[in-house]
Amino acid sequence: MTVVAAPLRPARGQLHGATLALTALPDMPLVRPGDDLAGLLIAALRRAGIAPASQDVVVVAQKIVSKAEGRLVRLRDVRPSLRATALAVDTGKDPRMVELILSESREVVRHAPGLLVTEHRLGFVMANAGIDQSNVEHPDGEELALLLPLDPDASCARLKTRLDAAFGADIAVLINDSFGRPWRQGVTGVALGASGLPALLDMVGQDDLFGRAMRITEIAVADEIAAAASLLMGQTAAGQPAVHLRGLRWDAAARPAADLLRPRRQDLFR
Amino acid sequence: MTVVAAPLRPARGQLHGATLALTALPDMPLVRPGDDLAGLLIAALRRAGIAPASQDVVVVAQKIVSKAEGRLVRLRDVRPSLRATALAVDTGKDPRMVELILSESREVVRHAPGLLVTEHRLGFVMANAGIDQSNVEHPDGEELALLLPLDPDASCARLKTRLDAAFGADIAVLINDSFGRPWRQGVTGVALGASGLPALLDMVGQDDLFGRAMRITEIAVADEIAAAASLLMGQTAAGQPAVHLRGLRWDAAARPAADLLRPRRQDLFR
Repeated sequence: MTVVAAPLRPARGQLHGATLALTALPDMPLVRPGDDLAGLLIAALRRAGIAPASQDVVVVAQKIVSKAEGRLVRLRDVRPSLRATALAVDTGKDPRMVELILSESREVVRHAPGLLVTEHRLGFVMANAGIDQSNVEHPDGEELALLLPLDPDASCARLKTRLDAAFGADIAVLINDSFGRPWRQGVTGVALGASGLPALLDMVGQDDLFGRAMRITEIAVADEIAAAASLLMGQTAAGQPAVHLRGLRWDAAARPAADLLRPRRQDLFR
Repeated sequence: MTVVAAPLRPARGQLHGATLALTALPDMPLVRPGDDLAGLLIAALRRAGIAPASQDVVVVAQKIVSKAEGRLVRLRDVRPSLRATALAVDTGKDPRMVELILSESREVVRHAPGLLVTEHRLGFVMANAGIDQSNVEHPDGEELALLLPLDPDASCARLKTRLDAAFGADIAVLINDSFGRPWRQGVTGVALGASGLPALLDMVGQDDLFGRAMRITEIAVADEIAAAASLLMGQTAAGQPAVHLRGLRWDAAARPAADLLRPRRQDLFR
C-alpha cells in the first residue's frame, strides 16, 4: 500500500496578488428548497465562460444556501414562548420571529427597541440570529422566515467537492452574509462559512519593512473576501447571489470560518 | 454670470456593477514626511497604464497618508502622565505609547493586558488610537510612532482634487486601515476617510424581490471597498499601499467616512 502524504501547508503565511477580478455570475435562477445549488453554480460559471482555477474563490450568498437547504419556517407554525412574547414587546418585533431567533441562539447579548442581538448557536454574534423575512417567497400569502444554514463550513465543503470535481481544480468556497457591528453604521459582508482558504491568516512573527516584528497578527481574510463580494451582490431585485474571485494567492493552510469566532473568554464586549 | 447647478444626487440609492477589478499600484516608493502623495499616486497610476475614470476608486493605506502628512512623533519627546503610566502597567504597553494614545483619544473604552481600545478624537473606536510603531523608519535607531492623519476625509478630498485634475474625471478616494472588532478574530480593512463616493449608502424604502420593504437599511460601502483593497495591500515587505478599483457604480450622493461613525447614544456596546 502506498501512503501519499497530503502537502504540508504552514499554519502561518502570507497573502499575495497584484490584481483581483470579481465577477458576479449572471442569470443565477431563483433558488428553491431542494435545488442542487452546486449544479446551479457550475452551470452559471460555465454560462459566464469561467472555469475556476485553484485558489479561485466562489462566494455564495447565505440566502441561496439556506433556501437550497430548505431552511424555511412557516411563521404560522411557530408558537411563541412567554419569554419570546416579553422580548417581542421590548423590541417591537413579531413574537413568532423572536421565538425563532431564541430557538436559533445560545443567549441574548443585547436588546433594545428595534434591536435583538444574540449569540447564534454557531457562535456568530449578530442581529436576529441571521433570520430573514425579506426576499423569501410566500406563496398564498404564507409568511416564511429563512434560517442560517445548519453548518455553513460544511455547506462550503460540500459545494467545494462538487466544484473541484467539475473543474478539476482546488477551488475555495465561501458563504457570506451582511452583519451590522458596534460603533460603525451600516452592514458589511461577513463570512459565515469557508472551505479551501485560510479564513483567518496568522501573520505572527513576520517582520515589517524595517525588521521590526509585526504587531498586527491575524487577518480575517474570509471576511475581507466576503465584503468585497458583497459590493457586487446587491440587496434588491438586481441581486447577484454568487461571485467569482480570481487573483488572490496564499501559502497557508485552509481554515474554516468557525476559526473567525473569538473565544468568549477573550471577548471584552459581551 | 451663469450659475451652474451641481447635479442633484439622491441621498438614497443603489450600488451597481457586474465586475470589479482591483489593481495594486506597482512600485510605489517609500513615502517620507513632506512627500507629495498625490503626485506619487498620479505617477504610479500612469506607470501602471491606468487612467482613472469617474467612479473609479483609489484606495490609499493610512500609513502612507500619515507619513506624507508628517504625523510622526519621536517617542523620546513623549512624557507619560501618571494616568498613562498606570495604564501602561495594566496593559503591558510602553508608557510613552500609552501617553500618545490617550492624547489622541476622547476616552478609554476597554483595557486589558495587551489591549487598549479607545475612542479616537475623530470618533473611531479602535485599538491604540490607530498609532503604529511598525513599518516606521527609525534613522539612528530613533523610535518613532505614526499617528492617524489629522482629518482623513479632508485628506481624501485634497487627493481627489489633484487626481480629478490630472485625469479629468470624478474619481473617488478612500483611506483605509486595519481594525480589530468585537466577537470576531482578525483584522479587516476599514475606511478612515472617503471623498467622492457614498461611504454609507442608505437603502431604506427599496423593495426586495417580492415587494416586501427591505429590512437591511444601510450598507457601509466604504468599509467593504476598504476590505477588498486590504486583500492586496499586505502588511510586510511586499506591501502595496495603493490600490485602484474599477467597476462599481452608484446613483447616490457622496458621503464622507465620518458618516460611518455610529452616534454614541445609539451604541449599545460601550
